[in-house]
Amino acid sequence: MEIPLTPLDFARRTRKLYPEREAVVEGTLRLNYRQFFERCDRWSAHLQRLGVRPGDRVAYIAPNVHAHLEGYYAVPQLGAVIVPINYRLSESDFAYIIEHSGARVVCAHADYLVAVDHIRSQIPGVEHFVALTGQAPGWIDYEAAVAATAATYTKPEIKESDLLSINYTSGTTARPKGVMITHRNAWTNSVGTLVHIHMTCAERYLWTLPMFHANGWTFVWTVTAVGAAHICLPKPDPRSVFETIAAEKANFLCAAPTILIGIANAPEELRRQAPRGVRVITAGAPPAAATIERIEGELGWEITQVYGLTEVSPFISICEPRPEHAQLPPHARAEIKARQGVELLISGDLRVVDEQKRDVPSDGQTLGEIVVRGNVVMAGYYRDPVNTDNAMGDGWFHSGDAAVVHPDGYVEIRDRFKDVIISGGENISSIEVEGVLLRHPAVQEVAVVGVPDEKWGETPLAFVVLKKGAAATEDELKQFAREKLARFKVPQSIRFIAELPKTATGKIQKYVLRGGRANIGKQ
Amino acid sequence: MEIPLTPLDFARRTRKLYPEREAVVEGTLRLNYRQFFERCDRWSAHLQRLGVRPGDRVAYIAPNVHAHLEGYYAVPQLGAVIVPINYRLSESDFAYIIEHSGARVVCAHADYLVAVDHIRSQIPGVEHFVALTGQAPGWIDYEAAVAATAATYTKPEIKESDLLSINYTSGTTARPKGVMITHRNAWTNSVGTLVHIHMTCAERYLWTLPMFHANGWTFVWTVTAVGAAHICLPKPDPRSVFETIAAEKANFLCAAPTILIGIANAPEELRRQAPRGVRVITAGAPPAAATIERIEGELGWEITQVYGLTEVSPFISICEPRPEHAQLPPHARAEIKARQGVELLISGDLRVVDEQKRDVPSDGQTLGEIVVRGNVVMAGYYRDPVNTDNAMGDGWFHSGDAAVVHPDGYVEIRDRFKDVIISGGENISSIEVEGVLLRHPAVQEVAVVGVPDEKWGETPLAFVVLKKGAAATEDELKQFAREKLARFKVPQSIRFIAELPKTATGKIQKYVLRGGRANIGKQ
Repeated sequence: MEIPLTPLDFARRTRKLYPEREAVVEGTLRLNYRQFFERCDRWSAHLQRLGVRPGDRVAYIAPNVHAHLEGYYAVPQLGAVIVPINYRLSESDFAYIIEHSGARVVCAHADYLVAVDHIRSQIPGVEHFVALTGQAPGWIDYEAAVAATAATYTKPEIKESDLLSINYTSGTTARPKGVMITHRNAWTNSVGTLVHIHMTCAERYLWTLPMFHANGWTFVWTVTAVGAAHICLPKPDPRSVFETIAAEKANFLCAAPTILIGIANAPEELRRQAPRGVRVITAGAPPAAATIERIEGELGWEITQVYGLTEVSPFISICEPRPEHAQLPPHARAEIKARQGVELLISGDLRVVDEQKRDVPSDGQTLGEIVVRGNVVMAGYYRDPVNTDNAMGDGWFHSGDAAVVHPDGYVEIRDRFKDVIISGGENISSIEVEGVLLRHPAVQEVAVVGVPDEKWGETPLAFVVLKKGAAATEDELKQFAREKLARFKVPQSIRFIAELPKTATGKIQKYVLRGGRANIGKQ
Repeated sequence: MEIPLTPLDFARRTRKLYPEREAVVEGTLRLNYRQFFERCDRWSAHLQRLGVRPGDRVAYIAPNVHAHLEGYYAVPQLGAVIVPINYRLSESDFAYIIEHSGARVVCAHADYLVAVDHIRSQIPGVEHFVALTGQAPGWIDYEAAVAATAATYTKPEIKESDLLSINYTSGTTARPKGVMITHRNAWTNSVGTLVHIHMTCAERYLWTLPMFHANGWTFVWTVTAVGAAHICLPKPDPRSVFETIAAEKANFLCAAPTILIGIANAPEELRRQAPRGVRVITAGAPPAAATIERIEGELGWEITQVYGLTEVSPFISICEPRPEHAQLPPHARAEIKARQGVELLISGDLRVVDEQKRDVPSDGQTLGEIVVRGNVVMAGYYRDPVNTDNAMGDGWFHSGDAAVVHPDGYVEIRDRFKDVIISGGENISSIEVEGVLLRHPAVQEVAVVGVPDEKWGETPLAFVVLKKGAAATEDELKQFAREKLARFKVPQSIRFIAELPKTATGKIQKYVLRGGRANIGKQ
């Protein structure tokens, strides 16, 4: 007997098993799961009354507030497709994504009503504008609509191959691409996460990762699946993170490396508040071993690195702890934890291959591209057969990430393929060089790029952000790097910079650094 | 992108990630996963050479030996169907199952070669007989075949809806029925187990549960999935269990209640050897709270009860620990642990319904039947459309188990529907009465059945097995029951008996007791 694999089945079960458990905390608001799903159902009913039908797209522009979380249930249970948009994007990106997705409804947080009003003329297909918080002329008041609508709607039949969400990637150079995630994709990512990262209804999950980011790495559903609590934090600066963890007894969070760095380098008075034993999942970019060591050693938290991309729902590997790792000294363990690890049990077959699609040797040295086939791989890019074919036309999704395989089978990303520096015929992984510089006590962040060189083709150039109050010279850092790196990998030049240019999802924009357009600091 | 959900995908991954980890221990034999899968591949190649094609059935009659375990990979990876037969059945049952399944190959352990030879004339469809251990005329020598065959075979395409196994239930009154388990069924049960019961490659799993029993509750695949070790124990008497746990550092096992009772009542000198922290999954029949309390309290082991039937791959509920249970005193916690609990995250929708298919109230009192729909529900009974339709024709699989739902949503089985005793219009759960008598210090096992009564319709009759060296009178036990049960539930009569009649899978045959055909003891 087959029933569809869908996160909506988690919701069905949680309604039944955990109605009285805390579902959502946001400031002073507390909802149990009965109340939460009642609200979702009311919103579904209202959306259906507005004319939303199976297959229709509903866009969201919002930080981590409960009204946003409700969208991940209210929209899909109508058979409709949620389109979570990165709220840090520009108005023109908003317009592009809304128009490209063909959304009939746009739901926005109070902070983004003005931006959307600016682009109304560019998104003629949108029939309804919903203010998730706040009120404004021309906007449906979400709370009023939820309050006024009975929780009854016509339930469509949903197949596991149906679209659940379209998640637009924040392109660094090209237009955003719409990643089509099916119910089966998302279900697999949630269940796959739980197989490796055991969670129960006792968990209290802190939302620092934006929900729009690959559906919060599917934690919008994973947390609900186990009957745990969602603790919403619209603005996750280090102070709020530490204070909320303490106040709400949060014990679990997902964090991009930017947030991790913020946590590792938070002022002593904040870090003192931190309870031990908080579990952290990190992904999005390889964290430095130094950051991991600091958070695990000083705070007593437990970091697990997971790797993936929006196109794979998003997890395809996890740095699985093994009994033999437990015996290692902290430094060596952090080095292993900085690796991307091994494929999850149910995400699919992950390989690192050369240009002829042969597996690279497990020597920790030979670079290949990470490719994957499995149930987490997206259905394709929305309305974009050319890019879909480029990415997965041969039956494997091509990640664009350059990695090595260690003798123990653990994969370690060395770079985006386009960021590999080729110097004198040798490959230099910018991430390897960055990892070394990050171990210097004065260094907060670093980005290494290749710059043209007449003799070597390219040579590495490092952009360094120093910690507040710390000082270091170029020579000192070069000397530091020379002690730990082959000579040809040591940056030819080091530039100090106040802030690294980043995309809206926090990824460093190396193309900006290469183009010399960075906001170079004073030193 | 969809790839089939199949336990064979676990094997693909484990070959890649855990080649050097211990796969199988059996006496002095030790195989790592590379060696284990090499043997499976060789056996697949040999089977293919013998003419086994996708869809063909291959029967196994064997205790928990590694050659049996290899069958759970070698057969399905050919697209063929494994038919594991309960080795405790009679020769005529062997003949019936082999013939009914249409097996072309029968693989048997040395202990069963003679039995199979006796029935050769009744199973004309079998083309090849394989001695997994031992040698005999007319039997292919498994070890010789594995040694002589190269590990190359033609891999078929496998769909997740394809049949993986046919597991014959040991009927108490009727002929065995062939439960058709698909690749998706088994995959779901294994993954569902891992979501709730976290296992890693550090686990050392002891085989006390027979593999033929619903594919060892799918642990033939679950253990491999996480890269853990299978410790095979062909004869799991309490002494071997305790000695093997100590010698092999086993830390995990599955056990039917019969084995649990054996463990709880093992001699002191054996129990002294037991390391603390062993995890035990129990299912197959509701264990008594007293047994749970004893094993948890005295041995320091951790028992989790799971409930299911062969027809549901086999798990549909788990007694999920909740934070609030941790605060309870041991006795109260054992009472909860004796419940069947709540549906697993991915097994499917479990309901307890009355005859009109309405959910019974969550009052801990109203009896209903457990029904389920989901991805663990079998494809049907093999070559038996009538029984298939009876069991699941309405879209729900009907378990035949009578249960109540407690206010916390936890389901507790009170009886097989046919074993409920109706006395003076009141339902009496034989299991409830048994649970009370089991708390008496002299009682080892007990079975309660209804006997006809002119005044009340039926009244309860208890059959009691006393512990070795213990004594108790009928009046003493009745008095003990009166203190804990409503008067109408107290057995009218108690008979002492040397041994309870059981099926080959260890289930008590109440129909034998009702018929008065039990081997009544001396007292």
